[in-house]
Amino acid sequence: MTSPVELILKKRAGRALAPEEIDELVAGVASGEIPDYQLSAFLMAVFFRGMSDRETVALTRAMLHTGRVIPLRSVRAPKIDKHSTGGVGDKISLCLGPLVAAAGVAVPMISGRGLGHTGGTLDKLEAIPGYRVDLGVKQFERVLRDVGVSLIGQTAELAPVDRKIYAIRDVTGTVESIPLIVASILSKKLALGSDGLVLDVKAGRGAFMPDLERARILARALVSVGRRAGKRVVALVTDMSSPIGLSIGNGLETREAIEVLRGAGPRDTRELTLALGVEMLLLAGAAKTAGAARSTLERALDDGSAFERFRRMVHAHGGDTRSVDRPERLTNARFKLPILSSTSGFVAAIDPLALGLASIGLGAGRTRAEQTVDPAAGIEISAPLGARVTRKEPLAYLYARTRTLAEAEAKRVHAAFTIAARRRPHGDRVLDHIRSRTKS
Amino acid sequence: MTSPVELILKKRAGRALAPEEIDELVAGVASGEIPDYQLSAFLMAVFFRGMSDRETVALTRAMLHTGRVIPLRSVRAPKIDKHSTGGVGDKISLCLGPLVAAAGVAVPMISGRGLGHTGGTLDKLEAIPGYRVDLGVKQFERVLRDVGVSLIGQTAELAPVDRKIYAIRDVTGTVESIPLIVASILSKKLALGSDGLVLDVKAGRGAFMPDLERARILARALVSVGRRAGKRVVALVTDMSSPIGLSIGNGLETREAIEVLRGAGPRDTRELTLALGVEMLLLAGAAKTAGAARSTLERALDDGSAFERFRRMVHAHGGDTRSVDRPERLTNARFKLPILSSTSGFVAAIDPLALGLASIGLGAGRTRAEQTVDPAAGIEISAPLGARVTRKEPLAYLYARTRTLAEAEAKRVHAAFTIAARRRPHGDRVLDHIRSRTKS
Repeated sequence: MTSPVELILKKRAGRALAPEEIDELVAGVASGEIPDYQLSAFLMAVFFRGMSDRETVALTRAMLHTGRVIPLRSVRAPKIDKHSTGGVGDKISLCLGPLVAAAGVAVPMISGRGLGHTGGTLDKLEAIPGYRVDLGVKQFERVLRDVGVSLIGQTAELAPVDRKIYAIRDVTGTVESIPLIVASILSKKLALGSDGLVLDVKAGRGAFMPDLERARILARALVSVGRRAGKRVVALVTDMSSPIGLSIGNGLETREAIEVLRGAGPRDTRELTLALGVEMLLLAGAAKTAGAARSTLERALDDGSAFERFRRMVHAHGGDTRSVDRPERLTNARFKLPILSSTSGFVAAIDPLALGLASIGLGAGRTRAEQTVDPAAGIEISAPLGARVTRKEPLAYLYARTRTLAEAEAKRVHAAFTIAARRRPHGDRVLDHIRSRTKS
Repeated sequence: MTSPVELILKKRAGRALAPEEIDELVAGVASGEIPDYQLSAFLMAVFFRGMSDRETVALTRAMLHTGRVIPLRSVRAPKIDKHSTGGVGDKISLCLGPLVAAAGVAVPMISGRGLGHTGGTLDKLEAIPGYRVDLGVKQFERVLRDVGVSLIGQTAELAPVDRKIYAIRDVTGTVESIPLIVASILSKKLALGSDGLVLDVKAGRGAFMPDLERARILARALVSVGRRAGKRVVALVTDMSSPIGLSIGNGLETREAIEVLRGAGPRDTRELTLALGVEMLLLAGAAKTAGAARSTLERALDDGSAFERFRRMVHAHGGDTRSVDRPERLTNARFKLPILSSTSGFVAAIDPLALGLASIGLGAGRTRAEQTVDPAAGIEISAPLGARVTRKEPLAYLYARTRTLAEAEAKRVHAAFTIAARRRPHGDRVLDHIRSRTKS
């Protein structure tokens, strides 16, 4: 039994901890025997010294074993989970889950709420009146069996120590550590008995980890640690240097997701959904090639079967399906303010961080966990990347409860658009595929 | 007003904090507004990123201003303080204070207790029956005026935040940070209104900081930060690769100090006392040259005036002067065990760390702050460095309350002595003088 101080000193010296040492540490944190001040010093030492993949696997496993494991044995279909590191306008889970389910792969997804400039899937689902994100494990499993997809909220039963550790990281400047991020994500994902996991690691100004090289390192670490821990894991590194699609805000994003599920919607939202879906089908063994997977998925979007799955999921969760059939009901904000271009030209850049922060101001997000959100608030982009605009033409519309709220964000949203004289090319959202195990 | 997390992140990024930011941090720690887990994360970031001299000065000042400042204005003589980073057999303060006082320089000294393998001056003084280390500030000042020297214990009034910070450092692996060590030492020393400070920074296996280069860096930082904070500071880097003198343990060491004060005692104890005393007289302006200072001090040892000061200090502190006149009373342990050499040759090395740890086992030290010590316990070295020994001749004697306690340490003490076929030279204890300000 090594004392907590000795473990801190060992990590401080840059030495690797043994799996048993990591187990002791996590057990001590979970039980409260190791006080927060020792935990935070340890976390800061990890920030500076890092952890090997072997240590990160041990940390992930130790964290997941502080809670319940949900094996989902009664679900016969192959089960593939998806996780995004969070972005602005990221409604992909809402499209992707039902779509992949329509292709015969079960999608058990436990999502979070929005915090800071990035939105959360739960808040988007709750824009649908009646949708319950707090199903118990049994009901979750039943919906998965019946519908093939269920999106619920984090339960306190999965890796509970992660909450405790994250709460300390948040207030001690130890959030941005790759092994700590990896263990936090994977401890919850591995507690769920899926057959594979597809990760969407975002890079760019709207992402949690803006730097592309750092995002790649995180993606590789997630794949490597996940595989060492026995899960099939694939990661896409995707572009978050502009908002996804044309909407930011809960009801607005759910409406956009429904459009995509009906075979329409913005091109980039559809493409990112398909790219992640292809990986999920390949991991599940439900398609032999990426081309075949893509054809299956395109068909499910275009023939209404993906939309039908979404509708059934909403129903199974107690949600009002009239909102699904008439998604304009989701965006009935009292006040709508156009943001006009002050010049003519082409939209060359849209700052996702600025729009993410503006959407908080409009009431769509939160800066503290206990705040509530306005489901109808948000931003609708009318001039996307590459679009030609003339002076006084709207770039975006702000949706808010009051004129005051909307006007307070007008300047920031206007400044988020860069208008250039010439049209600039912009690339695909998918920047990199990380499929193979990497060296630790 | 910068938030604690922002201060942690700034330091984590290797940036220097502004003095006002350090003030806020220290005030928050002192008031309890900043929780221990944020403090410990900050301290670990300081461990990895360091602090500039400017930051360390600000930290020292902020810490000292959480408590009382004792100006000692009624003491007319120049006042010079001394601090040692702690060693094994380090009874120098007991000889040095009275000696320097005899040369006309007042010595206000606030000392600590032993913890771990290094002893503490307070425990040594308390080996004298009746000696009170807990004089109030007024009495301390009176003894200083009347006798010219007073040795008391740390009061809760000086830099109280240091205790809080040190308690957290001790259990979070953040002790070995030069700026934190410097601020801890100097915040208490600067709170005392002395005209100068002489530091004894130990290097070698028995020291808190064994590596000579690290000890030099610490000494330079102490001198530089102390001077920037407005105090005249000089440091000697001294050798702690063998115990000082011939005794380890409270009563034994006090006896040895009395021998030195009477003009006798082991050569190295006397020489180290003189070397530090010379610096104190020079800092005080009480001697023009090192040679003149040394002559004055040698005379005070040899003519009994230094001893007389010690006797008066003990009396003023309520101590029994009969123990001073008959110091053999201080070493009346129930049991005395000789450790015999198993070979013939010359003593080539004596491991101070092993003897320091053995003295704890014998009852002379403590591993936890709340333990009490046995004043009569300890180790008497009979074969010092360079001495010729024959087989079965005693290397040392162990003093303890019981045979069991002594026998438990016999092997460790025996192994602490290295006997070689040839006599090896050993150098002076003073390894380096740090007098001038260094660049930060």
